[in-house]
Amino acid sequence: MQALHFGGDYNPEQWPEQVWADDVELMRTAHVNLVTVGVFSWSRLQPGPDEFDFGWLDRVLDLLDDAGIGACLATPTASPPPWFTRLHPDAMPVTRDGIRLTHGSRDTYCVNAPAYRAASTRIADALGARYAGHRALRMWHVHNEYGTPCYCDHCATGFQVWLAGRYGDTDALNDAWSTDFWSQRYREWDEVLPPRVTQYLSNPAQVLDYRRFVSDSMLRHYIDQRETLRAASRAPITTNFVLGGWVPVDHARWAREVDVVAIDNYPSSVDDHLTERAFAADLARGWARAAGHPDGRWLLMEHAPGAVHSGGVVRALAAGQAREAALTYLDRGAVGVMYFQWRASRGGAEQWHPAIVPHEGAAAPIFQEISLLGAELAGRSPTAVSAQVALIFDELTMWAWQAPHVPSRDIDYEKMAYRWHGVLGGAGSAVDVVPVTASLSGYRLVVAPALYLMSQAVHTALRGYVLEGGTLVLTFASGLVDDCARVTPGALDDLIGARIVRHTPLLSDETVALAGTDAVGRRWFDQLEVTDARVTLQTADGAAAVIEHRFGAGLVRYLATDLDERQLLDTLADVRKGSAE
Amino acid sequence: MQALHFGGDYNPEQWPEQVWADDVELMRTAHVNLVTVGVFSWSRLQPGPDEFDFGWLDRVLDLLDDAGIGACLATPTASPPPWFTRLHPDAMPVTRDGIRLTHGSRDTYCVNAPAYRAASTRIADALGARYAGHRALRMWHVHNEYGTPCYCDHCATGFQVWLAGRYGDTDALNDAWSTDFWSQRYREWDEVLPPRVTQYLSNPAQVLDYRRFVSDSMLRHYIDQRETLRAASRAPITTNFVLGGWVPVDHARWAREVDVVAIDNYPSSVDDHLTERAFAADLARGWARAAGHPDGRWLLMEHAPGAVHSGGVVRALAAGQAREAALTYLDRGAVGVMYFQWRASRGGAEQWHPAIVPHEGAAAPIFQEISLLGAELAGRSPTAVSAQVALIFDELTMWAWQAPHVPSRDIDYEKMAYRWHGVLGGAGSAVDVVPVTASLSGYRLVVAPALYLMSQAVHTALRGYVLEGGTLVLTFASGLVDDCARVTPGALDDLIGARIVRHTPLLSDETVALAGTDAVGRRWFDQLEVTDARVTLQTADGAAAVIEHRFGAGLVRYLATDLDERQLLDTLADVRKGSAE
Amino acid sequence: MQALHFGGDYNPEQWPEQVWADDVELMRTAHVNLVTVGVFSWSRLQPGPDEFDFGWLDRVLDLLDDAGIGACLATPTASPPPWFTRLHPDAMPVTRDGIRLTHGSRDTYCVNAPAYRAASTRIADALGARYAGHRALRMWHVHNEYGTPCYCDHCATGFQVWLAGRYGDTDALNDAWSTDFWSQRYREWDEVLPPRVTQYLSNPAQVLDYRRFVSDSMLRHYIDQRETLRAASRAPITTNFVLGGWVPVDHARWAREVDVVAIDNYPSSVDDHLTERAFAADLARGWARAAGHPDGRWLLMEHAPGAVHSGGVVRALAAGQAREAALTYLDRGAVGVMYFQWRASRGGAEQWHPAIVPHEGAAAPIFQEISLLGAELAGRSPTAVSAQVALIFDELTMWAWQAPHVPSRDIDYEKMAYRWHGVLGGAGSAVDVVPVTASLSGYRLVVAPALYLMSQAVHTALRGYVLEGGTLVLTFASGLVDDCARVTPGALDDLIGARIVRHTPLLSDETVALAGTDAVGRRWFDQLEVTDARVTLQTADGAAAVIEHRFGAGLVRYLATDLDERQLLDTLADVRKGSAE
Repeated sequence: MQALHFGGDYNPEQWPEQVWADDVELMRTAHVNLVTVGVFSWSRLQPGPDEFDFGWLDRVLDLLDDAGIGACLATPTASPPPWFTRLHPDAMPVTRDGIRLTHGSRDTYCVNAPAYRAASTRIADALGARYAGHRALRMWHVHNEYGTPCYCDHCATGFQVWLAGRYGDTDALNDAWSTDFWSQRYREWDEVLPPRVTQYLSNPAQVLDYRRFVSDSMLRHYIDQRETLRAASRAPITTNFVLGGWVPVDHARWAREVDVVAIDNYPSSVDDHLTERAFAADLARGWARAAGHPDGRWLLMEHAPGAVHSGGVVRALAAGQAREAALTYLDRGAVGVMYFQWRASRGGAEQWHPAIVPHEGAAAPIFQEISLLGAELAGRSPTAVSAQVALIFDELTMWAWQAPHVPSRDIDYEKMAYRWHGVLGGAGSAVDVVPVTASLSGYRLVVAPALYLMSQAVHTALRGYVLEGGTLVLTFASGLVDDCARVTPGALDDLIGARIVRHTPLLSDETVALAGTDAVGRRWFDQLEVTDARVTLQTADGAAAVIEHRFGAGLVRYLATDLDERQLLDTLADVRKGSAE
Repeated sequence: MQALHFGGDYNPEQWPEQVWADDVELMRTAHVNLVTVGVFSWSRLQPGPDEFDFGWLDRVLDLLDDAGIGACLATPTASPPPWFTRLHPDAMPVTRDGIRLTHGSRDTYCVNAPAYRAASTRIADALGARYAGHRALRMWHVHNEYGTPCYCDHCATGFQVWLAGRYGDTDALNDAWSTDFWSQRYREWDEVLPPRVTQYLSNPAQVLDYRRFVSDSMLRHYIDQRETLRAASRAPITTNFVLGGWVPVDHARWAREVDVVAIDNYPSSVDDHLTERAFAADLARGWARAAGHPDGRWLLMEHAPGAVHSGGVVRALAAGQAREAALTYLDRGAVGVMYFQWRASRGGAEQWHPAIVPHEGAAAPIFQEISLLGAELAGRSPTAVSAQVALIFDELTMWAWQAPHVPSRDIDYEKMAYRWHGVLGGAGSAVDVVPVTASLSGYRLVVAPALYLMSQAVHTALRGYVLEGGTLVLTFASGLVDDCARVTPGALDDLIGARIVRHTPLLSDETVALAGTDAVGRRWFDQLEVTDARVTLQTADGAAAVIEHRFGAGLVRYLATDLDERQLLDTLADVRKGSAE
Repeated sequence: MQALHFGGDYNPEQWPEQVWADDVELMRTAHVNLVTVGVFSWSRLQPGPDEFDFGWLDRVLDLLDDAGIGACLATPTASPPPWFTRLHPDAMPVTRDGIRLTHGSRDTYCVNAPAYRAASTRIADALGARYAGHRALRMWHVHNEYGTPCYCDHCATGFQVWLAGRYGDTDALNDAWSTDFWSQRYREWDEVLPPRVTQYLSNPAQVLDYRRFVSDSMLRHYIDQRETLRAASRAPITTNFVLGGWVPVDHARWAREVDVVAIDNYPSSVDDHLTERAFAADLARGWARAAGHPDGRWLLMEHAPGAVHSGGVVRALAAGQAREAALTYLDRGAVGVMYFQWRASRGGAEQWHPAIVPHEGAAAPIFQEISLLGAELAGRSPTAVSAQVALIFDELTMWAWQAPHVPSRDIDYEKMAYRWHGVLGGAGSAVDVVPVTASLSGYRLVVAPALYLMSQAVHTALRGYVLEGGTLVLTFASGLVDDCARVTPGALDDLIGARIVRHTPLLSDETVALAGTDAVGRRWFDQLEVTDARVTLQTADGAAAVIEHRFGAGLVRYLATDLDERQLLDTLADVRKGSAE
């Protein structure tokens, strides 16, 4: 039987050495079997440019190993020490406004700065060399929560090279970016810049490509370290994904480069935290499955014990909710549940962050609750989850919806995904939340709400899925632009069996009355000229609101407006039961 | 019969050449007779510093001419190409915070940068030389929506020279700017800077003069091009004014420098869009009339077809509203109604901007609606509007109300002007919205609400108008400062026949009860000591709320508080009917 | 009998000399006996780097003296002239974002810039030399409202030196700042920077020390001038404190360096302005008393006549309120009430600031009201206030509550202090609002709400006070961190006679039901394990909500939650009456 990982981030360097033995004893009490060590240890491991100090970490790992506790050993590159930033000010990130940040927090680096790339590989190499053979080593944890964007000159140069690789010549770039709008035509690569602050609206294709470039730049930084570690060690290597619309990481692509998909999850709501966790879990599994990880297994690398911690604010959850949270992840395929963090920090910027051992010590209720949970989970192994239904959640589309100029400001792509997740998974059914690049052939039903951006490959893949018998639900506000954010009128017409004559975003207080129900449509209405489809729901005025189109061996249902949850359940009743097949 | 202009911005460089013939055919269908070409074509017309490419534009203009469609030919200076900004980074605008913007949008230029001025004149000269004799040419459209402020060192130097010209010596500047407050006395011109970011409140006179300077700098940039074009061509020359409190352009002054006053108009509200359009139209006519353009004729250079487009958000108008919008402008003296834009852009920052030919193509309802309108207007000629009533709307006063320190934060000058416009024009009466510099002698009634800033010339002009028999309505919050934003206590006393003892801005929930009505006063109350006037409305406490003063052959009515719309109508009933004369 | 100071800021340099005689005459009418002169006169007193002009100030002081009016003579260093900033751009303040401010307002200086320090001392020296013997001189007013923070390189260097002085070596700094969190360990002093803009949350200890450093830097600038003036003159020397959470001045420490504590007071609310004034007055007296000034006497250096002036907005107070305001200060020990300003400025950034002589002149109601007040106060001498109750208001704690990561966002330290002030002073009882460094032995009752930050010295002082018989009321959210913002679990347990097992910040709509009352607890709840205390109020669930602990000869009451005002009054009924002693 494979045991679950159970534990969390452990930062022994914050405490005198005599506390370490207590920690290990308490870990055993709590049935902890894995701790993440070293995430923020760079300034301790490499106190100066040419000075290393591994003695303390040796002792920590030995102590852990003696107690049978494994280590998820981090490379500390997310927090360069002050000496580094003083030597290499050009490696500090620069904002869109041209303001260079400095140290004093964490995450102060530019992944395109040569000095930072070299320093990162060097410390990773030193850790690999020293600890590849340590008995406590279970896993490598590269960096932490990749997410610092930068707009510096290193990035500008890197972006030009990346674009040259993507487009070949500037003519192709000009076409892809539609630069004839507003006289932005580029002649030479070095005229192209990151989307720095400018006078008015930015070019959406430039912004989108820049996010792709930043993701790729970070991925290269990750791979540099992974290869360095791989050369020394056979332990699995990963990094912890942080979720959120601001993160410039294409997680679906990254999932193929990690040995296990690992996410951190920090819900924002006390009331709906389990819903948020369920979505994140199904999404992590979806990324893992799409990237070919067996059974879609994934690891919850961080969450806050017994509390919600969001936006710098901590709110306690009721007793018992920590267990509910853990089970929510485990029932959805997590191979372990880990916390940030083991012992609360006395000082520093997150001193009030929840911890398994809080400031009040091991007598505090949370330690008891986590310990009981540890005991309960000790006998459990990972759950294999099999889903027949997939919800497509596409980060490129999420980014595209963030453009300064979109057809409607009332479409919140992430909230819409949450709502659909609730509808599809409502009765406890398993739902994979998958990227648009996933193989869909195994699913009976695939739902893709508001899939604004669709590349040609996505068009082909969705058609292929339906042609072979799949049932696909699409909605308004889908397929509007291609992967360069260029409008693609009529791109769905053949697939849905209707011509979309006019897109009408609705004002927030406008609704569309539906025939035979008191439910209404909101947010958007597509005026359809039905060609080959069948109308399954009409507006009170007799316009098509939902249509169904047999396409090859499969079926496409298209929703021309945003239905409320009850109406969605009605509308999908048959396809959810598989009756449409 | 003079035909109306009907058409819009046409950007053929965004489309393959084979689309152009379709465009021209559709234009004929829609009765389009004028299109604006070249606004954002700089990077196509001048692909490099010493390289020009006019071939494509030749073909466009020939195609248009063959179809009998005229061209409003733009100089493309609002959007310098990337090669320009790379060669001349010092020509990019700098914010108040000292942040230099870069290309990637539009409007990235500093009108005081020598390189930009030279490049602008050069491309204007090239266009003039090539197209002065083209048969399609109907009009020159210099630049686009002047509005980029800048605080760079070129501007600082320019400001110093401008101030030296205005004030002669620093003593006069110190007096005008009241620099003895907060120890700001200047000894040398080069100590004077643009109102860049500072520790606390800025000097209001400095801020006001800086807006004047920016307006004059932009005007010089316009005139540079106008003179260049004039030397080659006899076609009328204009630029399109963009409206809004942020725009640093003194439109009343500029109106004297264009051959036809042209405005762009983008209302913000779906419900009140016609009201907003009516105000803008009456204002454009007011500028035109005050600048001596015959009959106050003016051109609507841009508006959004069938939609409201404001703040990056598009909201569709109901069918028929596009026609209503056009008639609103035409009934108020527009010599044409033009749209932005002809064909929707596939990509770029405004890809969702409304267009006559939307992404869905000419089958879409909006194209049909505009085409019918085109047919209807083909038989119409410009309307001459004659107004007996004028509403003063003064951009200097609007700017002055934006100071960081004003007597009340609850006076919204623009909204107040809108409200008065509604009151005066309510029953369909023609109202000229005129600048404070307009000749008033032709009007029976002139209303000037909240005219905070009044120069000596304005004081003289208003008195002159009344002395000769005019009826003038003034309100609270008028004449409080001079043209250097210095307080001028008692400046209106002789004119209104009362002494204003105390200004009291009212809190938003405070009201003043009025005698004999359930209407109330709001926002402000002036305590008056009546000398020569007659009280026509009292507060419930017996204080004067509205007074009337015979002054020379005319009459001045003064409102000490902000009355509601109904009360305003009552109060003005006699003067609106001319009974007061 | 000692006369009260009565008068205000007088800026004669803003007016032609012929106005001065009128001013002095009106001052006599208003019974003004002291005016503050020269606050913003630097550019007049020193028109160029090596040029001085004292003639006009000689004449002003002579005029005043002839009329028996004293001068509070300011050094003008809060507003360096433009020539200074042009010569020394490095002396302009820099924001956290690295943006350097420029002149054009006031307060544009960096107290750590050598050129600014030298120029400040030079002008102070010149003033001292010239006016030490002038008969009008009553007091020196150094600078104005110290409050400009800066993050420039001068400050960085100064901060490093200051830290070396405070901590000795970087090991001690690393321990104090908990730099092992997020890998911030410093090796060399020059790696340590001001808390400039960084990628994520700042280190709270760094932020706190930076505020201390800025306060000390400003204090050094004050002392430089004070020593210069003292060498020439025996007149009392002070500076005017400006209140507000943004001000980086440790006023309790500064109070020991001024001859009389002087504050400016600008309430924000029209309805509660007297409450705000009462708090400020009791606070000023508390600072004065704690610093050893006899009877806790203090001076109101500025307030707005007959109006509230806050955030650039002026709102008039009702007739009679100016008198109420003055009496509120005087009843609380003020040795004078002074206004900003004497005569309203015609121009400049505060031209609408209230004044004793407003734009409308001496006939205006406010001049009459102030004149009557002056007459009334002419026969009055300072009130000696004796309080048996003290409310602790600690600026370090206020700063600590502003950290980006605190246990609760719903604790508003300043509002909580206001509320307690209302409770304690409700029935007109005298309450000293004192710093945490005050000697407490004279008070019967001391209340310290939400005293988040407690140094070891504070712990000792509070225990000493209780041991010797005092009654101390503490609340939740107290003693959570030490003076380096490090968490100190259990730090209050011995004092309150209970162990705090868990801190639970409550959501804004959560409440705690209390036994035997319909009042509720809010904001926070501490779960207590009572050891030696007695429970005096329980929750409906039987948990301790208020406990009482005999400690030495005294008594400590601890509130585990935030009670409403009525419940606070009930809870404190006995201790307010002294029955607990």
